[in-house]
Amino acid sequence: MASDMLLYWGSGSPPCWRIQLCLEEKALQGYQQKLLSFEKQEHKSAAVTEINPRGQLPSFRHGDNIINESLGACFYLENQFKAQGTKLMPDGAAEQALVLQRTFEVLTLQQKSGDVIYYNWRIPVEERHNSALKRNTEALAKELLLWEGYLAKMGPGSYIAGKAFTIVDVVFFPTLAYCFRFGLSTERYPNLGAYYKLLEQRPSVQASWPPHWKENPQTQDLLKEI
Amino acid sequence: MASDMLLYWGSGSPPCWRIQLCLEEKALQGYQQKLLSFEKQEHKSAAVTEINPRGQLPSFRHGDNIINESLGACFYLENQFKAQGTKLMPDGAAEQALVLQRTFEVLTLQQKSGDVIYYNWRIPVEERHNSALKRNTEALAKELLLWEGYLAKMGPGSYIAGKAFTIVDVVFFPTLAYCFRFGLSTERYPNLGAYYKLLEQRPSVQASWPPHWKENPQTQDLLKEI
Repeated sequence: MASDMLLYWGSGSPPCWRIQLCLEEKALQGYQQKLLSFEKQEHKSAAVTEINPRGQLPSFRHGDNIINESLGACFYLENQFKAQGTKLMPDGAAEQALVLQRTFEVLTLQQKSGDVIYYNWRIPVEERHNSALKRNTEALAKELLLWEGYLAKMGPGSYIAGKAFTIVDVVFFPTLAYCFRFGLSTERYPNLGAYYKLLEQRPSVQASWPPHWKENPQTQDLLKEI
Repeated sequence: MASDMLLYWGSGSPPCWRIQLCLEEKALQGYQQKLLSFEKQEHKSAAVTEINPRGQLPSFRHGDNIINESLGACFYLENQFKAQGTKLMPDGAAEQALVLQRTFEVLTLQQKSGDVIYYNWRIPVEERHNSALKRNTEALAKELLLWEGYLAKMGPGSYIAGKAFTIVDVVFFPTLAYCFRFGLSTERYPNLGAYYKLLEQRPSVQASWPPHWKENPQTQDLLKEI
């Protein structure tokens, strides 16, 4: 039934991982997929740009419907397969408000973590400034403390928006895992660390764990001191 | 009926304008609102940070439900008032895929326009580089051409996702209008120009037009040559 779906993805990319997680949670296993290499520039291949003129991963198709934006794809899958697999969007207004608020806040975390992790990759050497990287790092630390606080408020064993796993977790977890991959300290962020451990065991997360992280589980230490 | 809603907003801010537009389209006039001044730092006041710990505008409350993220608020209002006012999210899978894809793409336009418009505001003088601003400007021009192409493909008189006004337009229009405010040329981007003219006449847009743009309709020319 998911055989009319096609996902082009890159290993470890948080936006790709979101769609993979969402497909697992919605019991949509069996979709067509192809792991592509960013290093080999396969995201700029004709197969991808035909679906995604931006030449980016993820690129996702369901029948003739193309939806490459990761949050868009997650909303789409939840809407189209509401009664199937995990219910990712609660019906109640209060629960829905919190889930939507946090889901869109993840984009700020994504940007702030990217501003640090990709700094040298995005900024040509002659334009780099320690002061800029320091500012970006401070902004990321402040952002991470917000999320640490959200989890503290929810209490042990909670997901981001409460006792139920929702679309926020689908969107948030890959970005958080990426931070841990880059050395984020579970001691400095104990609630984020506990949440990470909880989610790590989840079948959908296990099934979609980035293959190159399995091959090489060693983390980098870019975010170790943050 | 919308009297249990409260919006703190700033004039001309695209994220604020999205919620205002959405409220108009969903026939939710009569909400409580307060226009705040960014210049006077009123977005950092206790009244705001109580709702929005980030100290940002928009800050939006519906009863006890707080949802400050502009796209989140639009999705929330559409979900909670589905049968009221303009239907902003189509039911059909194909239409919904396109609407969601484009809605999330607006965030890329928002970021790329911000990277140019706010460059001097965000980057301390000792870190500024003409090469960076040039790169950002080229990225914005490329992004604008994508949207110009989307509209060209839809044909004259269309909205972003086709013949119906949807949530994409709520999200896209304020960001586009901001670009025109900063001097974007309707000659260089004729389809975007025609779309802007079409939307400008819409009652929801008229009702929520930024007050300080009315007072001072003169545009700046930062984006004139782009």
